[in-house]
Amino acid sequence: VPPRADRTGDRLPPGARVADLGELALLDRIARRVGPPPSHIVLGIGDDAAALRSTAGALTLITTDALVEDVHFRRATSSAADVGWKALAINVSDIASMGGAATAAVISLMLPPALDARWVDDLYDGLAEAARAFDLAIVGGNLTQAPAIVVDVTVLGEAAPADLVSRRGAQVGDLIAVTGTLGRAAAGLAALETGVPATAAPAAAPEVAVAIGAQRRPRPRLSEGRCLAGTHAIHAMIDLSDGLALDLSRVCAASGVGARIDAARLPIDPAVATVARHAGRDPLDLSLSGGEDYELLFTFPPAASDRVLGALAAAGATQATIIGTIVAPEQGRTIAVIDEVRPLDARGWTHFRRAQTPAGGLEGP
Amino acid sequence: VPPRADRTGDRLPPGARVADLGELALLDRIARRVGPPPSHIVLGIGDDAAALRSTAGALTLITTDALVEDVHFRRATSSAADVGWKALAINVSDIASMGGAATAAVISLMLPPALDARWVDDLYDGLAEAARAFDLAIVGGNLTQAPAIVVDVTVLGEAAPADLVSRRGAQVGDLIAVTGTLGRAAAGLAALETGVPATAAPAAAPEVAVAIGAQRRPRPRLSEGRCLAGTHAIHAMIDLSDGLALDLSRVCAASGVGARIDAARLPIDPAVATVARHAGRDPLDLSLSGGEDYELLFTFPPAASDRVLGALAAAGATQATIIGTIVAPEQGRTIAVIDEVRPLDARGWTHFRRAQTPAGGLEGP
Repeated sequence: VPPRADRTGDRLPPGARVADLGELALLDRIARRVGPPPSHIVLGIGDDAAALRSTAGALTLITTDALVEDVHFRRATSSAADVGWKALAINVSDIASMGGAATAAVISLMLPPALDARWVDDLYDGLAEAARAFDLAIVGGNLTQAPAIVVDVTVLGEAAPADLVSRRGAQVGDLIAVTGTLGRAAAGLAALETGVPATAAPAAAPEVAVAIGAQRRPRPRLSEGRCLAGTHAIHAMIDLSDGLALDLSRVCAASGVGARIDAARLPIDPAVATVARHAGRDPLDLSLSGGEDYELLFTFPPAASDRVLGALAAAGATQATIIGTIVAPEQGRTIAVIDEVRPLDARGWTHFRRAQTPAGGLEGP
Repeated sequence: VPPRADRTGDRLPPGARVADLGELALLDRIARRVGPPPSHIVLGIGDDAAALRSTAGALTLITTDALVEDVHFRRATSSAADVGWKALAINVSDIASMGGAATAAVISLMLPPALDARWVDDLYDGLAEAARAFDLAIVGGNLTQAPAIVVDVTVLGEAAPADLVSRRGAQVGDLIAVTGTLGRAAAGLAALETGVPATAAPAAAPEVAVAIGAQRRPRPRLSEGRCLAGTHAIHAMIDLSDGLALDLSRVCAASGVGARIDAARLPIDPAVATVARHAGRDPLDLSLSGGEDYELLFTFPPAASDRVLGALAAAGATQATIIGTIVAPEQGRTIAVIDEVRPLDARGWTHFRRAQTPAGGLEGP
C-alpha cells in the first residue's frame, strides 16, 4: 500500500505512530500545515520564540486553555480536527469577551508515543482551519510525550485600551444580555451521548444537528465582542464557557453585585426541548448549567440599550437578548421562574471536585 | 493537628488533596502566591484574558514549553518548588536567546485530583520566586485535571526590532561562542541519578553541588542575551536546551551553514570530570549532548570579537568562550578532538523516539 498523500503533499505510511516519526519530522509536518506566517509575524514556527509586530498603542491580551483526552474529549467520539478547532476556539472566545481581536497562538501538544501520527496531522488541519476562520496566526508551540493527549493553547490578542472590557465593571441597574441562544452545546452533547435518533423527532432533526455542530465546533463571538466593546457602553463581559449560572456568578463576584434573571426571557436554543425530553434532562438546567455555548454575556446601563443592541443589528452580527438586571449584592443572584424567585445555583463545572468528568466536559475560567 | 499557615497566611489541612479544595479555592491560593501585578499589567489573574501594556515599538515575543511528570521530572526526586522554578526558567531562556526581556507568563496546570494540595502551593512558590528573579509577571493560567502533572508555561517577552536575534543568520566565517560552561546540568543530573557521594571526591564536592543546583534551578542568561543583542554584531543565537551538538545543528540547519568545533576550547564544567568518572559516563558526551545547560550559543564575525566579548565583560555578565567557526554547508558539522576531526553527532533528545525518558529529560526546541 503506497503511503497516502494528504493535501500538503505529505505522505505517511499507514499505521505510522508518533514515535515512528520523531519530533523533527512531526515539526516539519506541522509547519507545512500551518503555512507561511502573515506579515505581522516577524518570526513564526522554528525559532526559540516567535516575534510579532503589535498595533501601536494596543494592549496585548493573553489567555490559555487546554483540552485533555478523557477529560474534555474522547478519541472514540471526537475527530482530531474537531479537537483542534475547539482547542483554538475556546481560547479565542476569551479574547472575544475582552473586546479584543485574536492575533496569534502557540500550541503545546502532549502526545502518547503510540498515537497514530495521522491523528496529529488531522488535529493540525482543524487548528489551521480555525486559525483561518478566526484570522490569527499559529506561530509556535511545543511537542512532548505524555500518558494522555493534551492540546494546550495560548492565544494572544489585542484591544485598544478604551475598548477593553473586563468582568469587573457591572453596576447596579445594568441590564444583562446574552448573544445567540443558550443550551445549544449542552443539547448537542446530550444528543451525542444518548444518541437521540433523527427518527425520534424528525421535525427537530436540523436543530439537533446544529446543536451537535456547535458542541464540536464552537464559534467564538469575535465580531460581536468587538462591536459591543466599540459602543463603549459595556460595563462587564464574559464568555459562557461553564454555563450562564456559573459564569454570571463570576461577573457578580468580580463586580461586587447581585443579579436577577428572568427565566421567561432566556433565549433557549430550539434543540434543547427535544433533546431534554429524549435524554431525560431538565431544559432549564441544560440552558443554565450545560456550558460550552461560548456566547457572550454582558451588562450595560438601560439608557444605552438601543445603542448596544442596535450596534449588533447594524453590524449584521449575532443578536443579543436582555435576560435580567444587575441588582445590589445583598439581593444575591436569583432567577424568576413563572411566579417563583429561586436562588440561581452557580452550578457548572469546577474541576477536581468530581471523580469523573464526561467527554466534552467543561472548562474553568 | 492545626492546619499549617504558610507565608501567605493560608492554612491547609494536612493531607488535603487537590480534589478537596476544588478549582476556586486553588485559584484563590494561586492568586495570593502570585501577588498583585506590576503597573504594566492592566488586568492580571482573574479575568477571561490578561491585558498588558507593551513598550511602544517593541516586538512581542512568545514561547511555550512544558514539564511533564515522569517525562521531565519525578515527584520523588524533584521538589515542587524546583519544578515551578524550572518550568518558568526554561521558557525565559528562549526569550533570552532572542535578545529579549521577559514580561509576563501564563501557567497551564494539569493536576491529578488525588495530588496533595500542598504540592501546588509549593509549585507556585517556585514559580513566583522565579518570576521575581526574571522580572516578569504571572498574569493568568488554567487549571484542569489530567492523569499526570503537567506544568505548561507560556512566556511573553519584548525586544526592539533592531535587537531581535534568531537562529537563522549565521554566516560562513563567523566565530561560535557559548556563555558559561558546558555539561554542568548533565553532570548534576548524573550525580543525582547515580548518587555520587560527597566523600568520593571531597575536593570536587562544591562543584558537584553547583552542578546539582544548576540542574534543579537553571539560570537563563537574560542579561547576557540582551547585552549580546545590544552589540548588533550577533548573527545567530540559540539557548542550549538539548545539548551543544543538537542545538548547534539547529542553528546550522536554519542558517544553511556548517560548523567546526574545537574540542580543546570547550568550556567543560569542572564538575563533569568527577561525575563522569563516578557515573561511568564520557565527559565529552555529557558536555556535548547532556543538555539543560541553558547557556547561550551565538555567532558573530571575527572582527566584532573584542566588541562582543568586551560587552559581556563590561556588563559584569557571564563570560563567553569561542569554541569554533561557521563553515560552508558542504563541510558539514564536525568536531576536532586532538588530531582527529569527527562528525559532530546531533544527538540530544528528540521526543517520542525513545521508549523511556529518564527524570530530568530534555526538551525539544
